[in-house]
Amino acid sequence: MSSQVVPPALERLIQDLTKLPGIGNKTASRLAMNILRRPAAEARELATALMELHSTIQLCSCCFSFSEDDPCTICRDPKRDSTLVCVVEQAGDLLAIEKTGIFQGHYHILHGVLSPIDGIGPSEIKVNELEARIAGGSIKEILIATSSTVPGEATANYLIDRLQNKPVLVTRLACGIPMGMDIKYADKHTLAKAIESRSKTV
Amino acid sequence: MSSQVVPPALERLIQDLTKLPGIGNKTASRLAMNILRRPAAEARELATALMELHSTIQLCSCCFSFSEDDPCTICRDPKRDSTLVCVVEQAGDLLAIEKTGIFQGHYHILHGVLSPIDGIGPSEIKVNELEARIAGGSIKEILIATSSTVPGEATANYLIDRLQNKPVLVTRLACGIPMGMDIKYADKHTLAKAIESRSKTV
Repeated sequence: MSSQVVPPALERLIQDLTKLPGIGNKTASRLAMNILRRPAAEARELATALMELHSTIQLCSCCFSFSEDDPCTICRDPKRDSTLVCVVEQAGDLLAIEKTGIFQGHYHILHGVLSPIDGIGPSEIKVNELEARIAGGSIKEILIATSSTVPGEATANYLIDRLQNKPVLVTRLACGIPMGMDIKYADKHTLAKAIESRSKTV
Repeated sequence: MSSQVVPPALERLIQDLTKLPGIGNKTASRLAMNILRRPAAEARELATALMELHSTIQLCSCCFSFSEDDPCTICRDPKRDSTLVCVVEQAGDLLAIEKTGIFQGHYHILHGVLSPIDGIGPSEIKVNELEARIAGGSIKEILIATSSTVPGEATANYLIDRLQNKPVLVTRLACGIPMGMDIKYADKHTLAKAIESRSKTV
């Protein structure tokens, strides 16, 4: 497509949008066209939100989640249990867990998973910082909630190894059949795990 | 999820992103988190592209495509055939046709399709403007390239009716089996159309 046909301002927006995850050239074009068809005020509103994002949000120096204040609202909430710390890969995982409404402890965001092939070792993610928090002495339980993927499992196993001599209980999320799933559609690994981890009925 | 947990600046961006087509709350969160993890300069670049979009781009007064100039680069290109006008629903369709590199005529963007249920009649889309262009006298052929969907077909049929007494040849895009498609995966309507519209071999 010649650059003549797509106005440069539109092309620039399309190129910027393709840098986002899961957005290819077609989706970016569709989004940009949609923005163009809608009132200019909406585009400006989105632009303002983007402008202000990095200037108002920072990392909490305790749990490393994104926050406008330091420490973040979770870390300074007196109603939450600071002796229980849930370790997650990314801030998005924290939001997913918060949505359940069931977890009342604190968090620790690793900001990544171990991935030797990408040069990401323990010092590239917030593992030393986790150890330092444990050394503080007030944490009783570390709940490892990394994803059930190969790098997520590898990171979990590394953490379990590294924390085995620390004076904390190390736990993991349960694996099994997702709620509402038909058994016949579960993959064999999940099903095997669910059988292994079967629980007694009352 | 309590608004405490998601920093307000992040929540604002997520809400603005969900206004885009095909972007729900989960995708918006994922995009916003990704933007937050990346350098502030990239967010500002995207913000600037959004800010400038509506101020630099307008509708071409002839074909109604989006352009930084009026008339647009296609309408004022002396190498293109101004006697052949391709009618499309949206500017995105123009880009798709331009990508083929095979069409050398002009365009006419309807900016919508007829949809009585949504209150969109002929005067809500650029049909009168198309008639006015035809009345100018230099157009010989109108190629209707609306989508092969129910509203697209309805709009095409309306245009065919309305243009039948005008001194122009009205043509439509061919329907049939997509290139590279296995016959057994084609839906029966497409296959029926392809049989009906079969062409002689040399």
